[in-house]
Formats: sequence, structure tokens, C-alpha cells
Amino acid sequence: METTIIYGKNAVIEALESGEREFNKILISNNVRSDVKIEQIKKLAIKNGVVFQFVAKEKLNAIEPDGRHQGVIAQIAPVNYVELNDFIERNKGKTTTVVVLDGVEDSHNVGAIIRSCVCAGVQGIIIPSRRGVLINSTVEKTSAGATNHISIIKVNSLVSAIQKLKENDYWVIASDHHAEQNHYEIDYTDMNFALIMGAEHAGISKSLLKLADFKVKIPMLTNFNSLNVSNATAIILFEYVSQLCRKQKTN
Amino acid sequence: METTIIYGKNAVIEALESGEREFNKILISNNVRSDVKIEQIKKLAIKNGVVFQFVAKEKLNAIEPDGRHQGVIAQIAPVNYVELNDFIERNKGKTTTVVVLDGVEDSHNVGAIIRSCVCAGVQGIIIPSRRGVLINSTVEKTSAGATNHISIIKVNSLVSAIQKLKENDYWVIASDHHAEQNHYEIDYTDMNFALIMGAEHAGISKSLLKLADFKVKIPMLTNFNSLNVSNATAIILFEYVSQLCRKQKTN
Repeated sequence: METTIIYGKNAVIEALESGEREFNKILISNNVRSDVKIEQIKKLAIKNGVVFQFVAKEKLNAIEPDGRHQGVIAQIAPVNYVELNDFIERNKGKTTTVVVLDGVEDSHNVGAIIRSCVCAGVQGIIIPSRRGVLINSTVEKTSAGATNHISIIKVNSLVSAIQKLKENDYWVIASDHHAEQNHYEIDYTDMNFALIMGAEHAGISKSLLKLADFKVKIPMLTNFNSLNVSNATAIILFEYVSQLCRKQKTN
Repeated sequence: METTIIYGKNAVIEALESGEREFNKILISNNVRSDVKIEQIKKLAIKNGVVFQFVAKEKLNAIEPDGRHQGVIAQIAPVNYVELNDFIERNKGKTTTVVVLDGVEDSHNVGAIIRSCVCAGVQGIIIPSRRGVLINSTVEKTSAGATNHISIIKVNSLVSAIQKLKENDYWVIASDHHAEQNHYEIDYTDMNFALIMGAEHAGISKSLLKLADFKVKIPMLTNFNSLNVSNATAIILFEYVSQLCRKQKTN
């Protein structure tokens, strides 16, 4: 079994609770102070038939040298990537939202984006298989386990993926500094949409921008630099959530 | 001169451009590939009378061992903290916004929050001097230099600081999971406000919550965990920015 690692108490609990991940085993430090979360990990492991072992702290430090493992590391199967066709098929008939990352490579940003996506009810995240980030253990940790609650779709060509989404009734929204429309000026409700977010400096590639049905910018009150990409994504997604909540209230 | 370091091309450029920071010197790696940003650093340094030296890469690695310095490290005076009284006095007569961090300690989060604050036109950020984070080089780097564009106010007691703000016509808004009101249901425009953000798990301390005029929550579409605190801050601040932009358009 090919394995990857996740570390930290919350990440391991999330992965166990989701039931979406295949575990090899869980390593717990001999001298970790037992607390509610460690007990929860042991209980969940027993319930799910996952082996756990107590090992010397040094062994954990050798696997995760930055020392952020909090005494717990799990060896699990890598994230199950989902095929775009399967994703589209599976979500037919319900209002569906995906986020497309074009050149966003920093693991902390990708993890934080996945976390916001799950909170905002986004069903899928599309990343390019050649460039872009892998879903590594930093992403899993930063996402607070959210990687287990969303379809992660790796594609060879973002252009083809966007075209396929358009053919399947998705509207394409691109976040772009140069846009004329503000992000709060479009109605995100009652449509399937794909939100494209680009790298902080380079922005979204031209070939993708051309495919966008809407380009939106987040207005700023100063001309300082720009927002961090994970914050920008959260701002747009929660404008969508706010619109939806307002609408449900008035209906 | 007591010094701290900032590293990375953008952080050094921002600090030079702001004119707000006292430089000791700038160290540039001997074998850094010269590009637009390195040239800009050299020009700005000459213009501002700041010494720069070319040194072996190993010297930079010794100062910033994580290797994220991109070939440039500046030794500068630590952030100038501002007194709360001075801040209030200086901003009298204009609509003013501050963000108060209660127990937010992760340097990446603090840096990202400061960056969003500057983009949203927030004038001050209040942190407790005992607990909480120092404005270290990770904060400066993550903020993309935004620490130079905002008043950073360190206080002994957050409770006293909030009380003082209230006496000076600031409304106090607390972000709280348990709030009844959604973040988009209050009008942030035309008032001075202090937005209190708490640590992700512990939330805001009770003594501060009691002082809040409004408690707001960000509604979510799933019951997954919660948002990262920097994303939550960005969502609330940009609801305020959106309200302001809409209002200016209709006036």
C-alpha cells in the first residue's frame, strides 16, 4: 500500500471520523500526555479496526522533523482523487460549486482554501496535475482535515476542465484584479459555478480568463498590494453563502 | 540599535517604500540572480541612504535557517508600537476601525490578518502584551510588509483597551460562533468600530464578550469545524468594505 502521512491530533481525528481514508496504522508517542483527543483517537481506531502503536518520540520526530505532530502520526493511503466526469455525473441535479486553483502552490494557502471551501459547502476543488501543489501533509494539516470532506479533482488541462464544466451548465467566475465588476455585484445563487482563483502575483492565465462568464474583483480601501489568495477565496465564497442565507430567510 | 530582521524581496521593498522603518543594513546574497526586485531594493536603499552589503549565501542561511529569505535580509529597528491614547487622539474626527486579537498566536495568522486589515483600510490592530504573538519576522513576511502601514498597539489589558475605545465612541463587535446575528446583518458604515477576533478553539474570553455591543457569527453551509481565524477576519472586514462601496455608489 502506497502511504502518505498526516499528523496532529485534529487531522487524525478528522480522517478517522470521515471514514473516507484507508489507514495503514497510527503511531502515538510513548510519552504524549493523554488527553480527550488522544483517547478519542484510540477509541475511533478500535471502532474502525485501525492498528495503533506506541513508539518513541524520536521515531515520530524522524518522520515529521518540524515537530508539529503533537505526538500522533497516521500512515494512510493518499487522498483519493476524483475524476472530473465522475464528479459532474455524481452532482447532476443539485446546485454545485467548485473552486479551480490556477498556479496556487503554497501548501498553507491550499490547505486554508480547502478548509474555507468545505465551510462554504463547495463540493469540489480542481487542481492541475503538472503545476500546482500536491495534497501533501502540510495541506492536510492546514485544512484541519477538510481534505476528507471535498472531492479533489486533478486534471491535465485546466482549460479542458473548464470547457467541460461549461458544457455541463456551470457558470465560470474568475477572480481578477482588473475586473470592472465587484465580487458582491453578481448573484451566485441558483446556479452551478466554478470559481477560478489565480496565484497572488501572476493572476489567472489568459487562456482561462477568456473562458470566464464573469470576472470579479474584491474592492479595497487602500492601494496596498493585494490580499492573500486564501483570504480572497474566503471573501468571495462567503459573499455567496451570505446571499444564499439571505434568500432562504426571505423565501 | 536593537534590531530585528525581515527577509524576502517583497517584505524588504515594502519596508523601504513605507519610510516608516529605521534600517541598520541590508544583506544581499552574492549569488542571488539579479532581477527587477533586487534592482529595486538597491535603488531604494541608495535613495534612502541605507547601506547594503553582498555576503555569502551561507551567512543569510545562518540568520534565517528556513531558507525563505530569497537572497535578501534586512536588519531593521523593531516595529514601532503605538500607544492606544495616541492612536485615539490621532484618529479623532475620522471614521476609524481597529481589529483586536484575543489569543490569536500563530504568526502566519497574525501576518495574514494584518495584510487583510491594511487592504480593508483598518487603521489599528490591538494585541495583548503578555499573551499573544510578537510582531516577529514571520509575521512581517506573511503580512507582505503590511506591518508598516498600520498602527500596532500593544496593551496590558484588552478589557481596559476596549473600555477606553467605548468611551471614545467606538462600537464593539465580537465574532462569536454562538451569536444569533449573522455578520452581514449589521451596518458597519458610519461608525467607529473595534472588531474582536478570538483564538480558533477557545474563542473570545468572557470578560471581553460582555463588553460587545454586537455579537456576530459567519453562517456556514456545513457543520464542519470552523474557519481559519485569518479567513474569518477577512470575511467580516470585506463585508464592511462591500457595504461602504455600495453606499458610496448610491450616494
